[in-house]
Amino acid sequence: MAAEANSNSDNLTLDKVREALIRQEDTIVFRLIQRANFPVNSPTYDEKFASFSGSLLQFVVKETEALQSKVGRYENPEEQPFFPENLPPSLVPPQANPPVLHPAAASININEKIWDFYFNQLLPLFAVPGDDGNYASTASSDLDCLQAISRRIHYGYYVAEVKFKDAPQDYEPAIRAQDREGLMKLLTFEAVEEMVKKRVEKKAAVFGQDVCLVDNGNGKCKVDPSVVSRLYGEWIMPLTKLVQVEYLLRRLD
Amino acid sequence: MAAEANSNSDNLTLDKVREALIRQEDTIVFRLIQRANFPVNSPTYDEKFASFSGSLLQFVVKETEALQSKVGRYENPEEQPFFPENLPPSLVPPQANPPVLHPAAASININEKIWDFYFNQLLPLFAVPGDDGNYASTASSDLDCLQAISRRIHYGYYVAEVKFKDAPQDYEPAIRAQDREGLMKLLTFEAVEEMVKKRVEKKAAVFGQDVCLVDNGNGKCKVDPSVVSRLYGEWIMPLTKLVQVEYLLRRLD
Repeated sequence: MAAEANSNSDNLTLDKVREALIRQEDTIVFRLIQRANFPVNSPTYDEKFASFSGSLLQFVVKETEALQSKVGRYENPEEQPFFPENLPPSLVPPQANPPVLHPAAASININEKIWDFYFNQLLPLFAVPGDDGNYASTASSDLDCLQAISRRIHYGYYVAEVKFKDAPQDYEPAIRAQDREGLMKLLTFEAVEEMVKKRVEKKAAVFGQDVCLVDNGNGKCKVDPSVVSRLYGEWIMPLTKLVQVEYLLRRLD
Repeated sequence: MAAEANSNSDNLTLDKVREALIRQEDTIVFRLIQRANFPVNSPTYDEKFASFSGSLLQFVVKETEALQSKVGRYENPEEQPFFPENLPPSLVPPQANPPVLHPAAASININEKIWDFYFNQLLPLFAVPGDDGNYASTASSDLDCLQAISRRIHYGYYVAEVKFKDAPQDYEPAIRAQDREGLMKLLTFEAVEEMVKKRVEKKAAVFGQDVCLVDNGNGKCKVDPSVVSRLYGEWIMPLTKLVQVEYLLRRLD
């Protein structure tokens, strides 16, 4: 999905980055709706449920990441693994594109925070209590959500890079002073954030409706649109800015 | 997703089966839209591209199926693997639910046909030509589409079982005569099929639109709704009926 934004540094514009972020909203909303097909299914997260080392979910995430690493997923800087230890190397030929980002990006992985809010705060807001036995599908659906959210948040590298490139003089003093708070202020545009929250809320309403040939007018949504707005307001946008700040702090190294 | 339909044979009603099929339409449309984020990306399918045995796609499908088999995916009868040879056994405790389907279901896997039409006919209809280098994401997106379509088609087991249970006298003569054509006629309702085609076309239009806060009125869809209608009319519904016929032919064994 980062294709336009990371294929060539000359192509990296704020418009293209924004376009990618907007498209990723659809992915996130689709995947939350898919996860909402299943109830919580707590055995998926129970370390004692089966004979894996860890929970069924951890097994699925670790094993899938190992497999995806072999096919080059983590050659894209915005794809950050949840279990980065001992990932096997990519078996595919490397891309010839010149790097767009400062190498510091590779050292910024905030997936621990994403894992934490996803399971402990977000999931109970949109998955109904219960157990339907579909643990394998539940785990891959969780992984889909985690990866879409993580990619969106780590896309902050590109946001920061393009903003820095467009106006280095705005950022350099705060970077030299290692002033996190100052950088956070420079990166915060409340009106834009409000607009994003409204847009994703609308997407959840549109994509989560029951589409019938004759309008049934039930207005029910598969995921409460206000939960998606909250996901962006409380977690995705603040954590994207955290990635941007971490990136900028190292941008002049 | 089959939870309501396969958890208990008393719960298997035509209404519940239909509800599951309708929900699966959303999944299929979402996943096609996601695949359409990428161009064709032909190196994904090139057996000489990397040092796998086979293409990157085959590697991803085989390895993902092996991993999902360990977490019990194929304990659900409607989940059929594309590479059933040498799948590792499930490591999760078996479900205590009594079986709903005739054991013949396990021997009916038409994924070869699904693989064939997906790559050779459907994909060129909705993925634009080109190469953006995102082969790992392309392969997992293809697998998502394949699995959603395969589940929908093999759900024909439940459709056939519930129809047979509701009116065995309608089906027994054709089953005893092993009359495929007669069974196909009994299972064909053109008006219903037309309605399904219209509904999925509408879903592709609704879910594939660019949702903006101010209506941009561009009416562009990420996947051409007529392609989704055709997917159902030419492949999904005929192949679901094929699964039903195969199942019914063995139903009295």
